[in-house]
Amino acid sequence: MKPSIPKGTRDFSTLEMSRRNYIFDTIRTVFGLFGYRQIETPAMENLSTLMGKYGEEGDKLLFKILNSGDFLAGADPKLLQEADSLHLTSQIAEKGLRYDLTVPFARFVVQHRNELQFPFKRFQIQPVWRADRPQKGRYREFYQCDADVIGSDSLINEVELLQLIDEVFARLGISITIKLNNRKVLAGIAELIGSPDKLIDITVAIDKIDKIGIDKVNEELAERGLSPEAIEALSPILTISGSVEERLARLSELLGQSEIGRLGVDELQYVLSHTAELGLRATLDLDVSLARGLNYYTGTIIEVKANDVAIGSITGGGRYDNLTGVFGLPGVSGVGISFGADRIYDVLNALNLYPAELATATKVLFVNFGAQEAARSMAIIKQFRAAGISAEIYPDEAKMKKQMTYANAAGIPFVAIIGETELEAGTITLKDMVSGTQEQLTALQAIDKLA
Amino acid sequence: MKPSIPKGTRDFSTLEMSRRNYIFDTIRTVFGLFGYRQIETPAMENLSTLMGKYGEEGDKLLFKILNSGDFLAGADPKLLQEADSLHLTSQIAEKGLRYDLTVPFARFVVQHRNELQFPFKRFQIQPVWRADRPQKGRYREFYQCDADVIGSDSLINEVELLQLIDEVFARLGISITIKLNNRKVLAGIAELIGSPDKLIDITVAIDKIDKIGIDKVNEELAERGLSPEAIEALSPILTISGSVEERLARLSELLGQSEIGRLGVDELQYVLSHTAELGLRATLDLDVSLARGLNYYTGTIIEVKANDVAIGSITGGGRYDNLTGVFGLPGVSGVGISFGADRIYDVLNALNLYPAELATATKVLFVNFGAQEAARSMAIIKQFRAAGISAEIYPDEAKMKKQMTYANAAGIPFVAIIGETELEAGTITLKDMVSGTQEQLTALQAIDKLA
Repeated sequence: MKPSIPKGTRDFSTLEMSRRNYIFDTIRTVFGLFGYRQIETPAMENLSTLMGKYGEEGDKLLFKILNSGDFLAGADPKLLQEADSLHLTSQIAEKGLRYDLTVPFARFVVQHRNELQFPFKRFQIQPVWRADRPQKGRYREFYQCDADVIGSDSLINEVELLQLIDEVFARLGISITIKLNNRKVLAGIAELIGSPDKLIDITVAIDKIDKIGIDKVNEELAERGLSPEAIEALSPILTISGSVEERLARLSELLGQSEIGRLGVDELQYVLSHTAELGLRATLDLDVSLARGLNYYTGTIIEVKANDVAIGSITGGGRYDNLTGVFGLPGVSGVGISFGADRIYDVLNALNLYPAELATATKVLFVNFGAQEAARSMAIIKQFRAAGISAEIYPDEAKMKKQMTYANAAGIPFVAIIGETELEAGTITLKDMVSGTQEQLTALQAIDKLA
Repeated sequence: MKPSIPKGTRDFSTLEMSRRNYIFDTIRTVFGLFGYRQIETPAMENLSTLMGKYGEEGDKLLFKILNSGDFLAGADPKLLQEADSLHLTSQIAEKGLRYDLTVPFARFVVQHRNELQFPFKRFQIQPVWRADRPQKGRYREFYQCDADVIGSDSLINEVELLQLIDEVFARLGISITIKLNNRKVLAGIAELIGSPDKLIDITVAIDKIDKIGIDKVNEELAERGLSPEAIEALSPILTISGSVEERLARLSELLGQSEIGRLGVDELQYVLSHTAELGLRATLDLDVSLARGLNYYTGTIIEVKANDVAIGSITGGGRYDNLTGVFGLPGVSGVGISFGADRIYDVLNALNLYPAELATATKVLFVNFGAQEAARSMAIIKQFRAAGISAEIYPDEAKMKKQMTYANAAGIPFVAIIGETELEAGTITLKDMVSGTQEQLTALQAIDKLA
C-alpha cells in the first residue's frame, strides 16, 4: 500500500511551512497593528448554518460529515430503496466543514452578540474546505485570512482597510494595484439603462471593452437580450476614459439622475481621496467592471492584483449591509477583506521574494563524536538556546561525513565541532557551511557571533 | 432560528485567542530552539490511512466525510435495504478527519521519505477531531502540539525531549513532575512473573499500592486471574520504595534474570542521569505503573503532571519502534511528545498565570470628534503603526461616552484625544485608562511613551 492524501489536499514540508508562516505572520502582525483581534470558529458547523448561503452550487461543494453511530437508523426507507442521495443527505449528515470564514463569522456575531463590543473588529486565519474539482492553484483545503469590522457604516473603515492592504503587500515586497468599485454605482448604471437584471452582462461588457472594442461588446450585449435603447444608454459609460479623477467626474455626470448612483460615486470619491491623502505605495484604480460578490456586497468593492505576476486577484473584499440578517440580526453593516494566502504564496515564489534570513532550519548542528563530546556539546547547546539560538546535536555517533551531509541537506548554516582537541582546550570549532570558513571560539564568543 | 455550533466544538473569543496564542507561541518557540521544524498535513485523510490504527473504538470515533455527488450510486442495494450503517460506511465515505497527529505523521514520513533528512525532527500544531461523547474538558475538536524525531534510536533524543518539556513549562510558569517509565521494564516484569498478558492488570495494581495496600492489591490480582505464584513473584516489585536512585537499583536487582528488563533499567538510568546532569527545573520521577499507549510504545514512556492543579496528564510521549511499519516502512525508530494545549490552558486559567502584558486588545484608541479631527488622527495613527504600536480610530462620530465605553469594555489601555484644542496646538491628549491620568504630548512623545 502506497500511502497518499485525498486529491486537492496538500502536505506542507518544513521549507513550505517556514514560507507560509512568513506570510501568515506578516498578515497577522498588520491585522494587529490596525486593531483587528483574532477569533477562531470550529472546522465543523451545523449544516443548517451553511446550507443555502453559497447558492445551489455551493451547497453541493460543502463537505458533509456522516453522523456518528447507526446513521441510517432514522433514515426514510423509501429514500434508501431509491438510493436518493440528494434527499437522504440531510437525514444522515448534520454537520459540514467550513466553506469560508464569512458565514461562520456572521453566525459567531449573532450567537455572541451580547458579549461583543461594536464596532467589532475581528480577524480570522483558518483553513476552509470546498469539494471543487482540483486543478492548478485550486485546492480542496486552503487558508483564508479575513479581517472585518462589523457594526459601523463609516467609510473610515474602508480607508483603513485599504491602508492595511497596502501595508501587508509593502511588507511582503509585492507591488500591487488596488481596484475599487461600488455596488451603488452598478445599481445606478442598471437604473440608468433600465435593465437591473442584466447587471452581470453589463459588468462583463465593461471588462471586455479594451480587448474587443465597443462594436463587438454591443453585439454581445444584444445577444444577451439587452434592448437597443439600453445598449445606447450604456454606451457613454463604456467609453469613459482618462485618469481616475476624470473618470469619476464623468461617472458623476452620467449618473446624475440616479440617487443611488450618485451616492456610490460620492462614496468612491471619499474613499479614494482620503486614502490618497494618507499616502499609499499601491496604485489605486477605479474599475467599474468590478463585480465580485454581486449578490453580497452593497457598497465598496475591493480587488487586489499583483503588478508583476499574471495571476487572479490575491485579495478582495467589500461592504455588506446584511451579513447577519439571515441569522436573525438585521441591519448590521460591515466591511471586510480576505487575503488569499495560497495565491500570495505563488506570487512570492514566482518573484523569489522571501527574505534571505527566513529561518528554514536550525542555526547550528553540533557534531556527535561520542559520549564525552556529546555531554559537553549538550551543556553548551543549553547556553545557546538560553540565548535564543536554535541548536541541536546529531543524536547518533555517526560518521563525520554523514553528519555533515545531514547539515548540508537540512540547510543548517553552522556546524559546531567539539572533538578531542576542543574538549581539552575548552573551545568550539565553528564552521560556516556557506563560506566554508571555520574558527576556534569559546562558547560565549560563538553565542555573540550567532545570537 | 438561534444559531449554534455542533456539540463538543468551541468558538474562541479574542481574549481566549490571545491566551491560546500565548501557549502555542511558547511551545512553537521552544520547539524551534530545539531544532524541530514545522510541517502540516491535511485535515482530511483517506479512511484507508486512518481505519484500524486506533482500535475498534477509535474506528467508531473517526469523523467520516460523505463522498461528494451521488454518493449512493455505487452502494450495495442489499445494504441500503437493510439500512446496514456499519457496512455501508466504506461505500459512501472515503475520507475522514484527522484523529491525532501521529498517524498522519507516519503517513507523511513514508510518503515523503525520499525528500526527508533522517533523523527527521518535526513538530506539528494542528486540531484533531474525535466523535467522543463531549464532557467537561473533553472536546470533539481540540489541538495537539507534537514533536517527534524519527530515524534515530539514540537516547540523547529522550534527554533532549525532557529538557524541551522542562523549558516549555518553565516559560509558562507551571511547576511540573515528569514521570518516566520504560516499556522494556514492564516486559521484564511480565517475564519475571510469567504473565505477559496481564500487563495492564499489573500496572493498575502497582498504581494502587499506595492507596489500598498490598493485601487488597493482591486480592484484586487474584480476582483478575493471576496465579498465586505470579502474585508472589510480583510482590517485591510492588513494595519497592525509596529515592529514584534506590528504586532503580532495586529494580535492576529484581529484573536481573530478564535481559529485556535489564535493558529497560539501563535505558531509564541513562535518561535520568543525563537529564539530571544538565539541570532540570521539573521534578523527575520513576513510575513503574506508567503504561500509557502500552501497545504502541516500545521504550521510554513519559508523562507530565502539573504540581499545583488536580488535572490529568498535560503532556505525554514515548519511544516507538514501528511507527511507519503499517505504511510499509519497517524498522524506523522514533520518540515523541505531545503537549495537551487545552489542559495547559485550563491549568494557566486555574493558576492565573498569564503574563500581565499579554496583548489582548489594541494599545490606543483615537476618539473620533469629526472629519477634521479624524483626518489628523489617522495621519498620526499611521506613525504609531510604523513604530509598531497597535492603534485604531473609533470609526463613527459617536458620543464621547460611547467611545470611552467601547475602549473600556474592549480592554484598550490608552485613549488618544484630538479635539479642537489639540488640533490647534498640534498635540494629543493621551489618557491612561487604568490610572485615569492624562497628559498633553506631541505625536513623537506619545510614540516614545507607548512603543
